[in-house]
Amino acid sequence: MKAAVYKGNGKLSVEEWNGRMPEEKEVQIKVSYCGICGSDIHILQGSEDHRMHLPSVIGHECSGTVWRVGSKVESAKPGDRVAVWPVKSCKECFACKEGYGHVCQYLKVRGIETEGAFQYAWTLDEEALVKIPDTVSMLHGALAEPLAICCHVVKRGNVKKGDFVVVIGGGPIGIMTALVAKAAGADVVLSEVNEKRLKKAAELGIHTVNPVKEDLLDAVINQTLGRGADVVFETSGSQPGVDSMVQLPKVHGTVVLVAIYGKPMTVDLKQLYYYEKNVVTARIQEKADMEKALELLAGNEIDADKIITSVLPLADIQKGFDKCMDRNGSEVKVMIQCDAD
Amino acid sequence: MKAAVYKGNGKLSVEEWNGRMPEEKEVQIKVSYCGICGSDIHILQGSEDHRMHLPSVIGHECSGTVWRVGSKVESAKPGDRVAVWPVKSCKECFACKEGYGHVCQYLKVRGIETEGAFQYAWTLDEEALVKIPDTVSMLHGALAEPLAICCHVVKRGNVKKGDFVVVIGGGPIGIMTALVAKAAGADVVLSEVNEKRLKKAAELGIHTVNPVKEDLLDAVINQTLGRGADVVFETSGSQPGVDSMVQLPKVHGTVVLVAIYGKPMTVDLKQLYYYEKNVVTARIQEKADMEKALELLAGNEIDADKIITSVLPLADIQKGFDKCMDRNGSEVKVMIQCDAD
Repeated sequence: MKAAVYKGNGKLSVEEWNGRMPEEKEVQIKVSYCGICGSDIHILQGSEDHRMHLPSVIGHECSGTVWRVGSKVESAKPGDRVAVWPVKSCKECFACKEGYGHVCQYLKVRGIETEGAFQYAWTLDEEALVKIPDTVSMLHGALAEPLAICCHVVKRGNVKKGDFVVVIGGGPIGIMTALVAKAAGADVVLSEVNEKRLKKAAELGIHTVNPVKEDLLDAVINQTLGRGADVVFETSGSQPGVDSMVQLPKVHGTVVLVAIYGKPMTVDLKQLYYYEKNVVTARIQEKADMEKALELLAGNEIDADKIITSVLPLADIQKGFDKCMDRNGSEVKVMIQCDAD
Repeated sequence: MKAAVYKGNGKLSVEEWNGRMPEEKEVQIKVSYCGICGSDIHILQGSEDHRMHLPSVIGHECSGTVWRVGSKVESAKPGDRVAVWPVKSCKECFACKEGYGHVCQYLKVRGIETEGAFQYAWTLDEEALVKIPDTVSMLHGALAEPLAICCHVVKRGNVKKGDFVVVIGGGPIGIMTALVAKAAGADVVLSEVNEKRLKKAAELGIHTVNPVKEDLLDAVINQTLGRGADVVFETSGSQPGVDSMVQLPKVHGTVVLVAIYGKPMTVDLKQLYYYEKNVVTARIQEKADMEKALELLAGNEIDADKIITSVLPLADIQKGFDKCMDRNGSEVKVMIQCDAD
């Protein structure tokens, strides 16, 4: 059975990989589709090697069908159509006990700290499974995990109907955050410099600003009649994004940090302080966010076909990564079909 | 009548100043005491000239007695013992309408954007007055305004009984924030590098750490059995303070930005993101915070005599500023007696 195996130092290869039989509380799923995530790109750039047991199969944005179940599995049976919640918490640390298991002090993200989904048959804990509604295709179901991240960030930002929301950065998470915020009833503007991404966002019905061509602060001030944004999502991870995020919120407005900042950033804290703006952060989703994401997909509130811009067989995964890493490209979400080989 | 008049470019002089008769909704108070604030120091350093109508009397941490009242004043009468809430909001902007008048988009801080308290008789709006309880002396009453800032920051941090709180920086605001958090039932540790200030904090019953001599993160991790702080108040305005503030909170813990950051700071945002820590900011108090501060003073929950380290006549105000600006000094709060001349 083939898998995309990461060897460390940025080296990925598709090769034979032995799946393992599930233990008592485990299941083995046949993976249908698995999306390429920004975290996978960080792995291929070599920055996450210290977190991993190498060699290992990566990938965590998947849909699949339950194939084999352990003797004590209660909530799943062969044939179940499932998405996978990638959070594996210890259940014993302070964070778990206080109800924040998704950011457990000893958190393992499936597909990073444990074996992942870019393979024919993946064995994992029963508790990771979330049922895909019948009306959602397996291809769309693989979007549940990244979409759940966006449901989580929108929840963290406490976005309400009628809010004015700015999303800085038009990558897959930025675009889906804009769509989830719109679904929550917000007026949304997305700021992005790549014209192809702007076009894609516009196709998805999102208002856009290119901050290189138009002053973003002026646009927000004009559109809110001087008030400023209720919530600003910083998904770009860039210094210009961080510079904007402190300016755009209204008095007592909120910034949500969504990007992974590879290095310390320069932040004009006085701009936050002066109008008592707040900053919240959002790392990874809770299980309820997975369910919310699947609800949005089932309700056709997210146009998954426009978000999934490429589907490639597992053998071509490197090509998929190359597409994702092309800064001038127009890809939103690249899916890998894992049961095709 | 004498006043401390700021001329711009860092120049302050004590000279004759004509008070003015109150208009309909105004009162004129005889100022008893007025404390020197960090903002006053910024004014003397010349950084606030652009906000001010010069020359102007500065000062805003005062107690006084109502002397004259305008024809339509309803809530005050001659002889009332009062403290002054320095916030003057427009009541019409979005912030005011949303209930955040204390950070009004057109906020005027009395003693900065308007005339202030370092004078014999100060004329100001009736709405600025807060009654000083009979059991609180006029000297202690002048502490209400900075103490109210600390009540506000502790409220913004949502400090609860049993919380573990770290206060970074042991200036007047840091020390009083520690005391207000203690009064709210928190375990508090204060981090400061100046040994004289550490000694003063210890005299006030505050646990202290000198981060130059002891690793602050280790101390917090040890004292919380690995959990981290519930709330961290950054009052130092320094880069080491900002570096610490992102490390110390627990999972989903809170940083409260209290300092005024004169320039953009380097912030390791990934440390906030990784455990979904939050940042709130606290600029200036609400009127209810003034009342809370006076309650704490009336209840002897704050040892005002230990916090007020010097009392000088108005004629010696420059000496007072020199004491406050001595980085190796041991002053906490320097009070100027305004009715002595």
